Amino acid sequence: MSKPAEHRPPGKVWLVGAGPGAVDLLTVRAVRLLAEADVVLHDALIGDDVLSLAPQAKHIAVGKRCGKHSTAQRFINQKLIHAARTHARVVRLKGGDPMLFGRAQEEMDALAAAGIEYEVVPGITAASAASAQLRVSLTRRGIARSVALLTPRAGEGEHPSQALRANADTPTLALYMASHESMAIARKLMSYGRDPATPVALVENASHPASREAFTTLQGLSEQPIGALLGTAGTPEGPVLVMLGEVFREILQQHTLLWQDNSTSAA
Amino acid sequence: MSKPAEHRPPGKVWLVGAGPGAVDLLTVRAVRLLAEADVVLHDALIGDDVLSLAPQAKHIAVGKRCGKHSTAQRFINQKLIHAARTHARVVRLKGGDPMLFGRAQEEMDALAAAGIEYEVVPGITAASAASAQLRVSLTRRGIARSVALLTPRAGEGEHPSQALRANADTPTLALYMASHESMAIARKLMSYGRDPATPVALVENASHPASREAFTTLQGLSEQPIGALLGTAGTPEGPVLVMLGEVFREILQQHTLLWQDNSTSAA
Repeated sequence: MSKPAEHRPPGKVWLVGAGPGAVDLLTVRAVRLLAEADVVLHDALIGDDVLSLAPQAKHIAVGKRCGKHSTAQRFINQKLIHAARTHARVVRLKGGDPMLFGRAQEEMDALAAAGIEYEVVPGITAASAASAQLRVSLTRRGIARSVALLTPRAGEGEHPSQALRANADTPTLALYMASHESMAIARKLMSYGRDPATPVALVENASHPASREAFTTLQGLSEQPIGALLGTAGTPEGPVLVMLGEVFREILQQHTLLWQDNSTSAA
Repeated sequence: MSKPAEHRPPGKVWLVGAGPGAVDLLTVRAVRLLAEADVVLHDALIGDDVLSLAPQAKHIAVGKRCGKHSTAQRFINQKLIHAARTHARVVRLKGGDPMLFGRAQEEMDALAAAGIEYEVVPGITAASAASAQLRVSLTRRGIARSVALLTPRAGEGEHPSQALRANADTPTLALYMASHESMAIARKLMSYGRDPATPVALVENASHPASREAFTTLQGLSEQPIGALLGTAGTPEGPVLVMLGEVFREILQQHTLLWQDNSTSAA
């Protein structure tokens, strides 16, 4: 593995999707690039088992979870450019897929402006992992020919409801980074005309052994915070994907029946 | 590897996403399951290099590309159940991600009805692979907080424009299985109010060495068939992902400038 050197041409950066969390849901290409990397700049949510795929590389945590996004992003861009100027092979490891809610464009633009070569390696996004875990297809003939992936988090100059309003009618919705505002989101979707009886599936930490699932309706989502629905005390620790649509009706009914059975046995 | 046996309990089925085509974009889990499989039932579009990951398994092509979907699907379900009743480890290998446009629900329902155990392994979907190849993020702060994945193919009891109408306002669209109807789709999206100047990116065979790309506007998409835009004679052989939205404005402008430069040099 090459050593840092300030005076040679810059190295190359791979923006790599780490997938949802399970280490064997990384792609073969991602595993190879991690094994060959000199430096890995990674999000806060990337697990130690994934990072152990790059044992010889320098690991730099650059993750941010909430807070001052813009400042943090500029800091990450600088770190990334510095890493490429001092190392031959730099992996920027992002949870899920870099091209979906990964703010990869800002990092790619910064690399291009600095004259640094880069490539993108796709990863499994949370919606694919969560639906695989639930064994519910996000699309289904006769029920859902489209799925919208969205985040209610607003950027500068955006209204937070914009993405919700544009997709209120999409048959299947997968909401990323929505757990803090889930009650307000549910109320908004109903105010845009979405049926309060629409089935909702929540998956925390999709693909992890410690994953939690919960099922409710849009009305139910509007009435309790995510933590209460998932049976955790307070805010869930892991990322939660909020999914909704008619494709989840059967799994909701199964869990409702199960719950009724348990209540009857307990009574 | 276990031999077929008609009289023991049924085996287990893994519905596995093969990703967009590049063999190193399979997940580590998919590669392991293929190596351990007794039978692999695969779509028509799965490449020989991917199938060679299961050299000891029986390979059964069950893919359909167009035509009588419902009949074909019942036939696939029967083949899958038969395979699980005669083999211990069955992999059902699907292009992309099984839970997105893979008709996995029909296969899972058939397996459940037959009392056969199954799991789903997610794969890289074409939208992730195509955007990685183009190095354009599908979401972007201030421009696109949501992306809709959809197909204009209609099922029984559905109107073909349903998915298009529900998502006409979504900032980024990725249209699967849309190449045969691309001109009509573009006209419909414009009739639903989408700006004719909306940038469009076409990617045939995302992630393959033989991938082709083309860039135009929604107006341009309405005026020429996909093959002409991609520079192929007739219909493209590989699957084409049609993507559109403001996130593609920069790459469209770069290609337009390149084209103008070439025209000027040639003149």
